[in-house]
Amino acid sequence: MQTKEITIAYIGGGSMEFGWKLISALAAEEALCGTVRLYDRIKQMSIANEAIGNRLRDDPACKSGLIYIATETLDEALRGADFVIISLSSGSFEECLCDIRLPEMYGIYQSTGEFSGPAGVIRSMRVLPEYVKIAERIKALCPNSWVISLTSPMSPCLSVLYSTFPEIKAFGSPCNLAEVQDLLADMANRQSMRSNILRRDIKHGLIGINGFSFMTEPTCDGESLIPLFDDYARKYLESGYERRANEYKMNLYASANRVKFDLFLRYGLIPAVPDRIAADFCPPWYLKNPKVTASWKFNLTTANFLKRRRNDKLARQKRLISGDEYLPIGGAGNEIVPQIKALLGLGNIISYADMPNGGQVGNLPNGAVVETTALFSRNSVKPVTVGDIPDDLLPLILRHVCNYATVVRAVRERDLDIAFNAFLNDPLMSLDLTSATELFKEMLAESSASLGYFAE
Amino acid sequence: MQTKEITIAYIGGGSMEFGWKLISALAAEEALCGTVRLYDRIKQMSIANEAIGNRLRDDPACKSGLIYIATETLDEALRGADFVIISLSSGSFEECLCDIRLPEMYGIYQSTGEFSGPAGVIRSMRVLPEYVKIAERIKALCPNSWVISLTSPMSPCLSVLYSTFPEIKAFGSPCNLAEVQDLLADMANRQSMRSNILRRDIKHGLIGINGFSFMTEPTCDGESLIPLFDDYARKYLESGYERRANEYKMNLYASANRVKFDLFLRYGLIPAVPDRIAADFCPPWYLKNPKVTASWKFNLTTANFLKRRRNDKLARQKRLISGDEYLPIGGAGNEIVPQIKALLGLGNIISYADMPNGGQVGNLPNGAVVETTALFSRNSVKPVTVGDIPDDLLPLILRHVCNYATVVRAVRERDLDIAFNAFLNDPLMSLDLTSATELFKEMLAESSASLGYFAE
Amino acid sequence: MQTKEITIAYIGGGSMEFGWKLISALAAEEALCGTVRLYDRIKQMSIANEAIGNRLRDDPACKSGLIYIATETLDEALRGADFVIISLSSGSFEECLCDIRLPEMYGIYQSTGEFSGPAGVIRSMRVLPEYVKIAERIKALCPNSWVISLTSPMSPCLSVLYSTFPEIKAFGSPCNLAEVQDLLADMANRQSMRSNILRRDIKHGLIGINGFSFMTEPTCDGESLIPLFDDYARKYLESGYERRANEYKMNLYASANRVKFDLFLRYGLIPAVPDRIAADFCPPWYLKNPKVTASWKFNLTTANFLKRRRNDKLARQKRLISGDEYLPIGGAGNEIVPQIKALLGLGNIISYADMPNGGQVGNLPNGAVVETTALFSRNSVKPVTVGDIPDDLLPLILRHVCNYATVVRAVRERDLDIAFNAFLNDPLMSLDLTSATELFKEMLAESSASLGYFAE
Amino acid sequence: MQTKEITIAYIGGGSMEFGWKLISALAAEEALCGTVRLYDRIKQMSIANEAIGNRLRDDPACKSGLIYIATETLDEALRGADFVIISLSSGSFEECLCDIRLPEMYGIYQSTGEFSGPAGVIRSMRVLPEYVKIAERIKALCPNSWVISLTSPMSPCLSVLYSTFPEIKAFGSPCNLAEVQDLLADMANRQSMRSNILRRDIKHGLIGINGFSFMTEPTCDGESLIPLFDDYARKYLESGYERRANEYKMNLYASANRVKFDLFLRYGLIPAVPDRIAADFCPPWYLKNPKVTASWKFNLTTANFLKRRRNDKLARQKRLISGDEYLPIGGAGNEIVPQIKALLGLGNIISYADMPNGGQVGNLPNGAVVETTALFSRNSVKPVTVGDIPDDLLPLILRHVCNYATVVRAVRERDLDIAFNAFLNDPLMSLDLTSATELFKEMLAESSASLGYFAE
Repeated sequence: MQTKEITIAYIGGGSMEFGWKLISALAAEEALCGTVRLYDRIKQMSIANEAIGNRLRDDPACKSGLIYIATETLDEALRGADFVIISLSSGSFEECLCDIRLPEMYGIYQSTGEFSGPAGVIRSMRVLPEYVKIAERIKALCPNSWVISLTSPMSPCLSVLYSTFPEIKAFGSPCNLAEVQDLLADMANRQSMRSNILRRDIKHGLIGINGFSFMTEPTCDGESLIPLFDDYARKYLESGYERRANEYKMNLYASANRVKFDLFLRYGLIPAVPDRIAADFCPPWYLKNPKVTASWKFNLTTANFLKRRRNDKLARQKRLISGDEYLPIGGAGNEIVPQIKALLGLGNIISYADMPNGGQVGNLPNGAVVETTALFSRNSVKPVTVGDIPDDLLPLILRHVCNYATVVRAVRERDLDIAFNAFLNDPLMSLDLTSATELFKEMLAESSASLGYFAE
Repeated sequence: MQTKEITIAYIGGGSMEFGWKLISALAAEEALCGTVRLYDRIKQMSIANEAIGNRLRDDPACKSGLIYIATETLDEALRGADFVIISLSSGSFEECLCDIRLPEMYGIYQSTGEFSGPAGVIRSMRVLPEYVKIAERIKALCPNSWVISLTSPMSPCLSVLYSTFPEIKAFGSPCNLAEVQDLLADMANRQSMRSNILRRDIKHGLIGINGFSFMTEPTCDGESLIPLFDDYARKYLESGYERRANEYKMNLYASANRVKFDLFLRYGLIPAVPDRIAADFCPPWYLKNPKVTASWKFNLTTANFLKRRRNDKLARQKRLISGDEYLPIGGAGNEIVPQIKALLGLGNIISYADMPNGGQVGNLPNGAVVETTALFSRNSVKPVTVGDIPDDLLPLILRHVCNYATVVRAVRERDLDIAFNAFLNDPLMSLDLTSATELFKEMLAESSASLGYFAE
Repeated sequence: MQTKEITIAYIGGGSMEFGWKLISALAAEEALCGTVRLYDRIKQMSIANEAIGNRLRDDPACKSGLIYIATETLDEALRGADFVIISLSSGSFEECLCDIRLPEMYGIYQSTGEFSGPAGVIRSMRVLPEYVKIAERIKALCPNSWVISLTSPMSPCLSVLYSTFPEIKAFGSPCNLAEVQDLLADMANRQSMRSNILRRDIKHGLIGINGFSFMTEPTCDGESLIPLFDDYARKYLESGYERRANEYKMNLYASANRVKFDLFLRYGLIPAVPDRIAADFCPPWYLKNPKVTASWKFNLTTANFLKRRRNDKLARQKRLISGDEYLPIGGAGNEIVPQIKALLGLGNIISYADMPNGGQVGNLPNGAVVETTALFSRNSVKPVTVGDIPDDLLPLILRHVCNYATVVRAVRERDLDIAFNAFLNDPLMSLDLTSATELFKEMLAESSASLGYFAE
Repeated sequence: MQTKEITIAYIGGGSMEFGWKLISALAAEEALCGTVRLYDRIKQMSIANEAIGNRLRDDPACKSGLIYIATETLDEALRGADFVIISLSSGSFEECLCDIRLPEMYGIYQSTGEFSGPAGVIRSMRVLPEYVKIAERIKALCPNSWVISLTSPMSPCLSVLYSTFPEIKAFGSPCNLAEVQDLLADMANRQSMRSNILRRDIKHGLIGINGFSFMTEPTCDGESLIPLFDDYARKYLESGYERRANEYKMNLYASANRVKFDLFLRYGLIPAVPDRIAADFCPPWYLKNPKVTASWKFNLTTANFLKRRRNDKLARQKRLISGDEYLPIGGAGNEIVPQIKALLGLGNIISYADMPNGGQVGNLPNGAVVETTALFSRNSVKPVTVGDIPDDLLPLILRHVCNYATVVRAVRERDLDIAFNAFLNDPLMSLDLTSATELFKEMLAESSASLGYFAE
């Protein structure tokens, strides 16, 4: 068994979301040793994760000897790193609340407010300047490292990495596949293809952009899952289908899959994201108002929910530091650990990656960040050609591709007027120009603390 | 002086709009002789124009010896023609009224309802099947003719000509340039660049799509007009600017140019169409509701206006037939006659054309019908490379390009579901999915007489 | 263990080359059962292979229950087939001899005469009309089958399949990788990376066209092989390097790898084909005359050699039919059997394929048949994006891409003048126009029996 | 009559070729006044042209008041210039002689040695470093000027301007159209289309690259000239056709047009360059050896001729300075003066330009410098879309496009090995690798004085 010694720089390393998932996943991995450097603007958060990560080695089930170290500065974390993982929060808790709340006052409802919509534009404006800076430091301190970006909105973040440092070796790793893979596994089990079909038995390709990508050729045991999904979609388009009835009423993140069924029946591809994320990328079809959303059987994000969730996390953080609770060992979340291993030469894998389009998607612009199947091998990520987006789905995706390009340009030129043009063009924006201008100004005002870059 | 004998087939030849303009323009032209064959589904209308056209030769000012002949059938008109002009009405008068009226019941306002919006999709569905048939007959009866298409929406009509008969020599000729050319001439005169600057002194290129195209490098006497227009735009963005104060309150087609100023200031290019046409291509920025439109100082089309205008035309038709009134000799409207002359080898000209993109616009898809500057010479129309659409304007245009492609595919496959996807994706459509479905069905029902093709 | 029942149609199924390799490889495969239908223009050859294939089941080591059946007609072989394998001979034995001999009289030497050069053009002209016919019958009789083409020249054969039947599911499978994989394994063993490194331990991607493709990112145990190969290339550029000294003097197919070293040092990529094949794609660098070739330490094909080899094969054919000798069980040759299994849903693999470029190679024309890494999964072959051909290597490949396109067009239009333009443009053709015309006519005359198609 | 005051910087301003043509052409132009600054590495030559240019104002026929000033430095010439004309010599007289002579020792004959062939590569290597420097100074001193490049080889020179200063406004202006325009005018006259058809009555487009471009849609008085040229080509392919019999035996630059006829008959387009230039771009079809060239009825350049011509020029230079002879007033040569006027806003013209491909040629790579029809207007040169190069002509042009790209990269990276790859790939190079290497070294040695840049 080969063991590789590596240095991972984790920027945004105080995360209680992806951070904990990563620590869990790495703990199950014997083949990696070395150091994980955690850097976070809020130092106390990275120190917490340092403690949690090192504490987990006390768990006898932990197979990894990786050491966690919180660093004072970004540069300390990056210098000479082999891998850089970036997962930032795109704004303070209060700013993210306003991203949702202010548009609602103009009748614009967003389910996640993380990827697109007016919230997505403001988020991008807050976080992309940080990406400019990180890319510059990577160029200076670890130009040969592999950079894995997870921050939402993922596409413009990767664009900024590439435009700031064109030779960078960076990709995004999709995080939202589990729900639909589980759904397909459940359908396949019920059809008794065989017992015990699990998420990992569902094979498929990907085509699209992060947050709005679709499965190509889903199979299980070498059989296409399209006919099965088509049966469910036709049968349950109106009522919805859930593994546990009405779970979507209990769990904000759950849904009855009606949006997936509708998009599948109209465009022919199974969405590879939860309903609430897909809905955010469309015109107000599913989000015209809360009643419409309720009829589609998924949930808008509420301020109360966000607050309660945050408090729960902070409480758990204490228990994890003290050792009253251990993070689970293993657990997937996404495929970052296997991807890192493949890049180290420990075996080729087929996985997924967000990267600038260099031919993998036939009808999206060259250079636009797209999400597709990819071959990971030693020091190499090569996207697989997944063909064309279907003609009538294309404009839904293209408009976000264009808007992301506009917002990236707005950041490059530090120009709020350009950013406004992206804001105006979002499919959820159905305001007259005067109202749109007002909303934009109000949202800028609430995020003024993070937008100083535009005045530099 | 060379005289060329030609045969023009004019399909939709009973038109009281473009038809009369064409007869006027041809009457001023000594270099052309031969026959104009008029075909119209409503025979009495082509017979009327036959009479009007031939009557005009009685006017001593008429320089042309062209003979007008109304034909019984499409084939009679087309057989062996040198030029085919197509200008159809895209639906009965009542259907066109419904195109506007039904969406208003769902809160969707359209200023023209001719190019895009829900009206544009339904119009396309009605008229494109006729274009399929015309293209097939051109292929059979006059495959070497030059085909000039003027029907709205122009882009999908040309797409259908090319997809049905790929070797066709067809282009569209933009008809809405006069307003902005006159506006620029007026500005230049006021600035005393010199006295007596006329529409024809304004030189410029074009980039975009029919109905939503923009000027490139506008000049007068070799001086750029951009600084001058920029002054006006900044000064008059809020108040608007009119050559005659408040004309827009009297004349449905007039405006105070506020939409032009706004688009120019945000995207850097001067729109080459009237405000009310440009507004129809945008999200509900200028069309959210009638009050918003009034504040932008242009007009929605009203049913009353359409009715009155039609009656006026019918009355004039009688006078023109009887010889109580003559059509004016000459008068431009658009550049079709000079274009025809250039194609006959009577001198090269720089003009404008809608044609499939073969490189003239750098960042629109290959094959999409675009509107640009073009070089007309003997038996040749060559678009001029006009570069890229500005980045933040691009998505506004791309979405129509995509929607047109979708509606063309819907017609090719006779598939209402595909057409619905185009309908759903229009920027003016801000409905939830259920309401959108209802509206679509209602609009189909009103046009059912013209949509039999989809059930064939 | 899943077993799949399949029907393979093998066109050119009397082959004593690839035919025997395929029978060997299938014999080792438990997962496949069903029928292999053999069709060959020379019926006695397919009957021989029918006997050899069925005879092999007598060998206790044979794991396969596949039945071999020689068919009377092409249609019998194709009807309802799941897989179609095409491996034709591109001309009679005598014609192939003339392909080499006639150009030599004009001072043009070719090492293989199978892929390019004047011989390649004439070969294409003989075999492509058969491909037109086969594609038409596949469309009629087994349109959903997977078609694997092996005939040289491979690129234009695949182009013809796709241009005749655009929806075809066809690919080519490269056959010449073993030599260089073995060379790299030998180098890695000598460097004691570890003992017992085998061909299959060498991992790499592919970029290029069939016969002239190059390795991307060759690795062994996760370590790049580029530094190692670079050492050998610099050290042995002049002398050559062989695993067994002077083997190239005994074995016509062997070489001292000097051409590989030279191409690697100038273009930065390791050729993935034997020296003698690569040389045929270049200007007369290595083939100016026999003395030059000898100095590069590889061999021209000689008529004597071809004759002797053919006689040996015919003798062995008899022994294989009688059961005096069995074909070996297993043995690779190429990856067709694993590719077939992946297409049946028996597990995804990364392999190689020749397919029309849809983005996998960034700087070759769209639609040109290219050879790259590809992901094989259930009913799907997806090429991997392998990036751009290096700038100065590009024209060497592009000219063959263009010539193949020209020869395909010549066949489509049955036009010898177009074919002559491809002939004239080959990099080995350094004649004046008059001599080139003479040579072309002489070669056509010798192949007149096979070129009747051009006169139809 | 508008008069524009301009400053022209003429780099290489001591030229006795294009320099004198430019002075002649400007002298006929009333609309331009101002200064022409002449800079030349050989100061005495620019001083001579200063004298000749100013002397010409003594001629009463001279309509221009332009002042000629020889500058000491490049910067003095460029600072604040409105137009920059660059026409350098690509090497000393002796170097240019060796470019021809050395390859002949290896059996490689070149007719001009200016555009391609081994001579073209070495020329590029000598002159492109100067272009790098000029582009940098233009960026610094007159970034808004229009730059007109005339140096051979034109394509890589323009590439270097654009790669060094991407925002540059530069184009090349083709200089070799007169011969074929005169030929067509002669044919049209003989056919009595009408009397007195002149060069300027021949209208046509252009497609290709400088030195190897072709006419699109040639017409005279609105009639296509293709049928007429086709008649001549078929009738005179073997014998050749000359306006004055056997002129090609007296005049090195003349030919019997056999190469034009041959290329036209095989590719369908009329070459827009003299035979001897076109021949240099092809494989050794017309240049295999001097006897072959003689049979094609055009001439190789000889050292004696070059020497005699140079002496004649120097003698004439004296007379022009002293006023014993005046340059003619007017006289075209090429279209630079009308192009300058159009750029100044003095009327739009259709002309020709070499510019980076941005869609004007459909099947050459984006960014490659191509030669096409172009629309010149105020401060704008817009190439016209001229479609695709015919399929079988494409590879002849593509290989030069690729080679030019390689040699430009060699200069950018100061890498002789890359330059050698361009050298090796020229269609006239039919040597084995060892001989090619020797020739390259010998040619480098002869030009070592100019190639210091590669050692910097």
